[in-house]
Amino acid sequence: MSGNEAANEQVRSIAHGGDLDAARALFPDVEEPWIDLSTGINPVPYPCPLLDASAFRRLPSRADLLSLREAAAKAYGAADPDHVAAAPGTQILIETLPRLRSSSQVAVVGPTYGEHEAAWLRGGHAVAMVSDVEGAEGADVVVVVNPNNPDGRIWEASRLLDLAKRLAGRGGWLVVDEAFIDLEQAESLASRSRTGLVVLRSFGKTYGLAGIRLGFALTDPVLALRIARALGPWAVPGPALAIGRAALVDDAWLREARIARHADAMRLDRLLICRGGRVVGGTCLFRTAEFDDAPGLFRRLGEAGIYVRRFEANPRWLRFGLPADKGEWCRLSRLLKPA
Amino acid sequence: MSGNEAANEQVRSIAHGGDLDAARALFPDVEEPWIDLSTGINPVPYPCPLLDASAFRRLPSRADLLSLREAAAKAYGAADPDHVAAAPGTQILIETLPRLRSSSQVAVVGPTYGEHEAAWLRGGHAVAMVSDVEGAEGADVVVVVNPNNPDGRIWEASRLLDLAKRLAGRGGWLVVDEAFIDLEQAESLASRSRTGLVVLRSFGKTYGLAGIRLGFALTDPVLALRIARALGPWAVPGPALAIGRAALVDDAWLREARIARHADAMRLDRLLICRGGRVVGGTCLFRTAEFDDAPGLFRRLGEAGIYVRRFEANPRWLRFGLPADKGEWCRLSRLLKPA
Repeated sequence: MSGNEAANEQVRSIAHGGDLDAARALFPDVEEPWIDLSTGINPVPYPCPLLDASAFRRLPSRADLLSLREAAAKAYGAADPDHVAAAPGTQILIETLPRLRSSSQVAVVGPTYGEHEAAWLRGGHAVAMVSDVEGAEGADVVVVVNPNNPDGRIWEASRLLDLAKRLAGRGGWLVVDEAFIDLEQAESLASRSRTGLVVLRSFGKTYGLAGIRLGFALTDPVLALRIARALGPWAVPGPALAIGRAALVDDAWLREARIARHADAMRLDRLLICRGGRVVGGTCLFRTAEFDDAPGLFRRLGEAGIYVRRFEANPRWLRFGLPADKGEWCRLSRLLKPA
Repeated sequence: MSGNEAANEQVRSIAHGGDLDAARALFPDVEEPWIDLSTGINPVPYPCPLLDASAFRRLPSRADLLSLREAAAKAYGAADPDHVAAAPGTQILIETLPRLRSSSQVAVVGPTYGEHEAAWLRGGHAVAMVSDVEGAEGADVVVVVNPNNPDGRIWEASRLLDLAKRLAGRGGWLVVDEAFIDLEQAESLASRSRTGLVVLRSFGKTYGLAGIRLGFALTDPVLALRIARALGPWAVPGPALAIGRAALVDDAWLREARIARHADAMRLDRLLICRGGRVVGGTCLFRTAEFDDAPGLFRRLGEAGIYVRRFEANPRWLRFGLPADKGEWCRLSRLLKPA
C-alpha cells in the first residue's frame, strides 16, 4: 500500500466534501483558484480573536475547559455545563458514542450523513437505515440528523422528544445531530437534555472554522461525563478552546450571520432554479437541487474550477455550498446561466 | 453536581501537572506570575510558523494529513507513512488502543504515567502493574513508558524487541510510550514498527506546544489504519497539521533543543543536589528527586509561586520541569539555596 493509498484509506471510503485535492485529480487541467462549494461550511468565518501564545504552548487547564463548556451551555440553552461534553470536532463524538453501549439495534433515519451508520457498524451494532422515525420504533438507538443533510428535512421537536422518552424508558438513546441547526428556524433539542437524548452540535460549520475541530454533545450529566472520559483530558486543543469561548458568547455575530446566510441561500436557490434545478432542500449553508443533467452540470462546473457535492445514491442531486465573495458569486452565476 | 465539580470530574481523577489553577487553589495568597514546573513540556517552544487562515477555516485535506504522516515517518525513522497514525494528542491514542482489542490480560510496567492503567481498565481489560518487563511475560498486552515518567528509567531496545516478538507470536501487543524520548540518548523503537509493536510519540512536549494536541502511533500498517479509522477523518486540527509538518522536518532546531535542554537538566540537577535532593532520574524535560522534607519543600516552593509535581504514591519525590528563562531560573535558585 503506497502512502497515497494509505492516506485515502486512513480517512475512510465515505465520500466527503471539502477535499479540493479530489477535485484537482478529477479536473487536472483547471487553473487555480478553485471555488470549493462541496461543503456546508460558512464561507464568512467568525473573526478569530488574537490568540495568546499560551493557547498553543500549555495544556488546556480545567478552568479553560469549564469556561468553554459554560459558553456552550449558554449558547445552546442547556441547563448548565454538566450537560455538555466538548470534543475536537463532532466527528469524534460520532465515533465515540457507539463504543459507550453494548451491542444494540440501531436505526439511522436517512439517507443522511454517512458517518453515523458507519460508526455504529464499526462499533459492532446492528444498523438499519429507515426513512422515518416511525420506522425506528423497535430500535435501542435512533439517529436523526436535524435538519437533515443533504435534503434539509426538519423533524418536529415534539415528535423527537416523544421518541426520546420512549427510548429512555427502555435504556435506549435518541441521537440528534444538529450540525446545521445554528442558523435555522428549526427547534433545537439542546435545551431539553435528558436521559436518553444526545444532541450533537458542531462549531466549525456555523463559524466557518472547520479546521480548529470543535463540537459538543449535550445530554444528561452521567453520559456527558462518560463521553468526556472516553476522550480523555486535554481533548480540545488550546486554539479551539480560546476561539470557541469567544465565538459562542457573541450573539450579535450569530444574528448577523443568520441574516446574511439566509439571504445567500435564497440567492443561491434563485440561481439553481434559473438553471433548471428543482430545489430539494438544504440549510442556510448548503442547497441541494435535482437536475435532469446533474452529471453533466457537475462536469461543466468542475471544468470551470467550481467543485460541488454529488451523491452516488442520488445521481440527479447536486449540493452547493455558499460562494464566499462577489468574485465567487460572479463565477458561479456565469456557469449557472441557462444554457 | 456543580459546574466546577463536573469540570474536575470531566478531566478525571488522575493527578496531572500543568494545571496552575490547582496551584492557585492550594496557595491562594501567592502573587502572580506563577512558575509552572509541574509538567515536562519544553519551556522554549518551537517558533510557530505563521499560520495561513485556511488552517483554521477549512477541513484538513487528505493531502495535508498525508504530508504530516510523511514528516512524522521521516522524523521518527519509520519506513513510510503507512506505519503512522496521527492523532490530536497522544492521550487520545492511549484511550483508543484498549478499544481495539477484545478483553485481554494487560501488564503495565510501573509506577508510570497513570493514564495507561486507567485507559485499559476503562476498556474492560484485566490490568496488572508490574515492576519490570520480566514480570509481564504472561500478559497479552504489555505497556512500557520509555524513558519512564517520572523516574527516567530506560529500557534496552533489544529486550523490548524480544518481548514484542514473543507477544506478536500470540497475537499480543507491546505498547511503548516514547513521550519523552525525542531529546534523549535512549534508542527509539519507532523505526522498528512491526506487528505487535505500537510506539507512541508525543509532539507537544518536545516542541513546547502541548496546546495544539498532536501525537502519533507507529505500528504495522493494518493497526495504523484501524487506529486512524477509530479516530475518524479530520482528527488532527488544521493548526496542529501545519505546525507539525514544519517542525518535524526541522532537524537543526531539534539538535539545538537537545543540547540546550541537556544543559538545563544538568543545571537543575545541581540545584536539586545542592538543596539536599537525591536525583532519582528523569529526562531532559523534567528531573525527579527525593527529599527528606519533600512535603515541606513543596509547600515552600508553592508559597513562593513555584509549582512542582508531587506524587501520592511517593511522598518523598518531587518532579521539577525546566524554568523558561533567566528570571525563572533565578527565582528557583533562590528558593533551592540550602537552608
